[in-house]
Amino acid sequence: MVGQRFIQLLDDHPFFDLSLLFSSERKSGNQFREMVDWQLEGTCPDRISRMMLNDFDPELLKEHDIDVVFSALPGSLLRDMEKEAALDGGKVFSNSASHRYDRDVPIMIPEVNGEHLGLISSQDTFPAGFIVTNPNCSTSGLVMSLAPISQFGIKKVYISTYQALSGAGYPGPSSLSMLGNIVPFIRKEEEKISIESGKILGKISGNKVEEASIKIIPSCARVPVKDGHLLSINVELEKEITPQEAKDTFSSLRSLPGLPSAPAHPIVVLDEEDRPQPLKDVSTGSSVKGMSVSIGRIRTDGNVLSYFALVNNTIRGGAGNAILTAEMAHEMNFIGGGRG
Amino acid sequence: MVGQRFIQLLDDHPFFDLSLLFSSERKSGNQFREMVDWQLEGTCPDRISRMMLNDFDPELLKEHDIDVVFSALPGSLLRDMEKEAALDGGKVFSNSASHRYDRDVPIMIPEVNGEHLGLISSQDTFPAGFIVTNPNCSTSGLVMSLAPISQFGIKKVYISTYQALSGAGYPGPSSLSMLGNIVPFIRKEEEKISIESGKILGKISGNKVEEASIKIIPSCARVPVKDGHLLSINVELEKEITPQEAKDTFSSLRSLPGLPSAPAHPIVVLDEEDRPQPLKDVSTGSSVKGMSVSIGRIRTDGNVLSYFALVNNTIRGGAGNAILTAEMAHEMNFIGGGRG
Amino acid sequence: MVGQRFIQLLDDHPFFDLSLLFSSERKSGNQFREMVDWQLEGTCPDRISRMMLNDFDPELLKEHDIDVVFSALPGSLLRDMEKEAALDGGKVFSNSASHRYDRDVPIMIPEVNGEHLGLISSQDTFPAGFIVTNPNCSTSGLVMSLAPISQFGIKKVYISTYQALSGAGYPGPSSLSMLGNIVPFIRKEEEKISIESGKILGKISGNKVEEASIKIIPSCARVPVKDGHLLSINVELEKEITPQEAKDTFSSLRSLPGLPSAPAHPIVVLDEEDRPQPLKDVSTGSSVKGMSVSIGRIRTDGNVLSYFALVNNTIRGGAGNAILTAEMAHEMNFIGGGRG
Amino acid sequence: MVGQRFIQLLDDHPFFDLSLLFSSERKSGNQFREMVDWQLEGTCPDRISRMMLNDFDPELLKEHDIDVVFSALPGSLLRDMEKEAALDGGKVFSNSASHRYDRDVPIMIPEVNGEHLGLISSQDTFPAGFIVTNPNCSTSGLVMSLAPISQFGIKKVYISTYQALSGAGYPGPSSLSMLGNIVPFIRKEEEKISIESGKILGKISGNKVEEASIKIIPSCARVPVKDGHLLSINVELEKEITPQEAKDTFSSLRSLPGLPSAPAHPIVVLDEEDRPQPLKDVSTGSSVKGMSVSIGRIRTDGNVLSYFALVNNTIRGGAGNAILTAEMAHEMNFIGGGRG
Repeated sequence: MVGQRFIQLLDDHPFFDLSLLFSSERKSGNQFREMVDWQLEGTCPDRISRMMLNDFDPELLKEHDIDVVFSALPGSLLRDMEKEAALDGGKVFSNSASHRYDRDVPIMIPEVNGEHLGLISSQDTFPAGFIVTNPNCSTSGLVMSLAPISQFGIKKVYISTYQALSGAGYPGPSSLSMLGNIVPFIRKEEEKISIESGKILGKISGNKVEEASIKIIPSCARVPVKDGHLLSINVELEKEITPQEAKDTFSSLRSLPGLPSAPAHPIVVLDEEDRPQPLKDVSTGSSVKGMSVSIGRIRTDGNVLSYFALVNNTIRGGAGNAILTAEMAHEMNFIGGGRG
Repeated sequence: MVGQRFIQLLDDHPFFDLSLLFSSERKSGNQFREMVDWQLEGTCPDRISRMMLNDFDPELLKEHDIDVVFSALPGSLLRDMEKEAALDGGKVFSNSASHRYDRDVPIMIPEVNGEHLGLISSQDTFPAGFIVTNPNCSTSGLVMSLAPISQFGIKKVYISTYQALSGAGYPGPSSLSMLGNIVPFIRKEEEKISIESGKILGKISGNKVEEASIKIIPSCARVPVKDGHLLSINVELEKEITPQEAKDTFSSLRSLPGLPSAPAHPIVVLDEEDRPQPLKDVSTGSSVKGMSVSIGRIRTDGNVLSYFALVNNTIRGGAGNAILTAEMAHEMNFIGGGRG
Repeated sequence: MVGQRFIQLLDDHPFFDLSLLFSSERKSGNQFREMVDWQLEGTCPDRISRMMLNDFDPELLKEHDIDVVFSALPGSLLRDMEKEAALDGGKVFSNSASHRYDRDVPIMIPEVNGEHLGLISSQDTFPAGFIVTNPNCSTSGLVMSLAPISQFGIKKVYISTYQALSGAGYPGPSSLSMLGNIVPFIRKEEEKISIESGKILGKISGNKVEEASIKIIPSCARVPVKDGHLLSINVELEKEITPQEAKDTFSSLRSLPGLPSAPAHPIVVLDEEDRPQPLKDVSTGSSVKGMSVSIGRIRTDGNVLSYFALVNNTIRGGAGNAILTAEMAHEMNFIGGGRG
Repeated sequence: MVGQRFIQLLDDHPFFDLSLLFSSERKSGNQFREMVDWQLEGTCPDRISRMMLNDFDPELLKEHDIDVVFSALPGSLLRDMEKEAALDGGKVFSNSASHRYDRDVPIMIPEVNGEHLGLISSQDTFPAGFIVTNPNCSTSGLVMSLAPISQFGIKKVYISTYQALSGAGYPGPSSLSMLGNIVPFIRKEEEKISIESGKILGKISGNKVEEASIKIIPSCARVPVKDGHLLSINVELEKEITPQEAKDTFSSLRSLPGLPSAPAHPIVVLDEEDRPQPLKDVSTGSSVKGMSVSIGRIRTDGNVLSYFALVNNTIRGGAGNAILTAEMAHEMNFIGGGRG
């Protein structure tokens, strides 16, 4: 699903030009449209549906004069293609978990930890290329909401998730398991949320990230919803704030003007008593739909701030966030010429 | 839905004999089957489907020599029929919220706070009758799970709910609102959970309940599931325990042998990594299916115990719990003869 | 739902300018956004959300110099507002069933029976105004598919429907009734399909429609799908044709160039073995998404042609079709000035 | 799913004693409960959950003195295990399609074509054993409904299906494909319905079945329903009948008293205007729930009889029907001793 989102969002992109597609060996040598069943709304852009799928070969990057690589590889591959690409000079923006926990690889949410992007200068393994990663899909929604309120001091976070089916990729869970049911387990998801959040909210110290000392206790469940991870979040703060202060603080998260995929409001606060809802709010976002996190039902009880947040898991929690990161890298001249 | 569960569970009950049905004025004067669309699995018991619906009139209780009344009234009625019934000597077991917060009315979960039943002796308003209430459907699952671990000292509880459609009664939410969606709001539900839990877990002091001083922070959401409220629970304890200790403690909640609706194991702990699930576990319970609470995914992190619990919202969280309470009252001779 | 589609599709329309909203008495006097919960994807256009809702009063049409009225009234109102509007000179394009079966009122699908629009000249009751109607939502999909193949002689049609929830309006059926279920009954739907199809496919004879003598046997069911009525259609033809001939014939239905809401291809034939599907194909249509009918799984057996068709029930089967009809009336100068 | 139904229905069966389980090689050598995720309501019978899974080996049948074999093999296996079992004396009752179209193998619905069972005497390939098959799951519902009305002369049948997810086995279709969607294609299903119906409704002539000359035109679709295939059926009869005659005729299909799995009423006619519905009617059946076919919405138009039928696809359309067939074979002494 994230791979298809990359294609959808990169079609007709002002900075980047999609010029080569890699796939698994089994599918390579064929046209995209022959091998892939389009799962997103609408249809696959025509030009891309006719592109050939290639076996991964870093040589092809040079041949085609490509320097930007977007990756949505599953975690379990034998070859470390992202590393191979970066060794050959590729600027890799990855949605997979393989390198997220590497010391010199940043996990980026551009509006939150833009300064972490500088870490790539320390990636001595790669003379010309680098690897930058996306957070896990539910982490991205959590951390975007935590970032602005971290000024009040975050001690502990309880999060229970209502995660959409598309987060599991296609085909993902059986319809017999999910129709009219909830499955309160997603493998490794809780671990990812805990570790990644601390890293993204951490501070650069020398050439590594010093993790924020926030205790995060996640409980993850899969729900029968197509798109949009809903998060029930409780934050223990060092000081008491009012719901209005929380609301103003969420809304204050700054946009990144000039980047084509940056929404005017990275966080949109909803006043209705029963929002955010996946069906109604999953496409929130001004430039690219699905890039804003929606927050609602803000309540406080003593020093505890409670709210629900919704993140579009394949856009802000996937392809869209990686592209926004690449746009930032482009503006900061980490990426060569005008073409990716 | 709860009204139909009462009928289903009282059909052929060893202690009670269903002899009169009350309904709204609009439906009274007709046979049950003419006015009510059966929503539960299977069909309505034949004898009952032919019974007449009556306008509520406490006189009828005397005429038919009835002393036990089960009530599943909606909250918003003008007349306080439960009070009228109790004034006329009726022993009322109610699933509605109208009297739950009255000082001398207990909210019962028989395995948890059996000793609270004695409170009815203080109901001076009613010379012969009394009113006993059920907790709210999600409260019942939460409190059953908290009761055994309260021995370790509960400081604070965070609970996020995944509540089934049947909890809203029929017709309840629109299919357009719920298909493939989550609605993170249920009116008054969070308030009910907080208040009721403290009362049920409290101690009798004189002729009232002294509420337990447990802080509960609930976040409630409706999910597209037919039956079974799933609860994501985090408990801050006064001391650290291991997952195995938690498991043993949950399993130690005692049954009430001799009561026909009492399950052998009020709490069933599941070892599978992805349970409890509404579709698979909603009917857990030995005597009456749906009377046991299922608990799984037990984890600890410092002094925080986390787990998922599942309660059948119309049985343990509704009719079944009220009937079990009436069975207990019967055994304790709060109810007159051998038959209600 | 159809009312909201009208608003969505009329916002920024090149021919018409939405200048007044009527509502039920209960809601009138308030802003649209205060009284109406937006059910469609995206948000309500801002300008419209701030418009006031008015009690219906034909005088207001004159006051505001309005001549075009779009109606999505429920069938069961006491006042015949459409007639009142037409008597006062209103050009009424209606999605309700009230006047569909009037002798001099056409049921329009512009690409199919454009010549029927002339019938409005015979509406002597209305000196200046007129009433034109939309077919029922499932009829529109059926008849668009039958029109091109009627050249082969249609003797009998069997149609079984898989109708979406939005066809019932909001709130429509209970989620408890529809989640994981099919309801094989939609009140009056089968009658509507039979009667309307004959009228739309009929020929103008004098100042009335001579109905086509096609026997239609419909079986209607509601399914848990949000948007898009899927139709399983079997047509007994007077002559045998091949699937390829059927395919070419479906594709030959002509567009109406120049009308802003007319799709380039009123019928889109899909070659994949498992299409059309509501989730993937409900937005088919070039100018306005949802205006094209998708057809797939074309098979023949002797003189029987079988296929599945999908129609967007609130767009082609509702607001979009009424607007396209108004656009046609505008081009044919049935509507006064350049602005509605 | 059908395999698990066999286990559920054979547990504690009066004629048969489940004594050996075969599985794929990958799972064999382990306990049932270790390898199989129970998908049905309730839990797997305890005794069976502890049974070992074995590689298929016909020798084991002799060793354990087993003569009855129930098979729910997928169609695509390399080895023809059913044939191997029958060659070794096994009496095979199969739910798979492999031998359904063999000339001397009957496709059985005991109440419909009991006399076809005699065909097994002609299976000269197997000196001691035999193979008997079940129809396809949707065929079973169609043919049970057609059998009683065939007395009026059936010329042609149009059937559109609404087939449940469990018909595809576990895991079956992706939840992303099915949630809120309909897929109008099930591979080979339409072919199966056409061919099998003619064979089951045919007459024994010598040692083969002479197929009934009924033209059947099926259109099959998968719907997001867990259990229960709903069928929209139109029958062109040689004579006109009234809905009441149709109703009486459906109800007249005779039961098979004495067979433990035979329902008192093989067909149950529902009078409600909106039934049968999968959620409410899938468990219809007196002895074993799910063995009766429910029929409703009976209408006639000239010589066309229209109705909806519902069949429990894994019980009457699967394991239950095979067991009923074996019970009949047992009563007719085709099976050796009193115990299988």
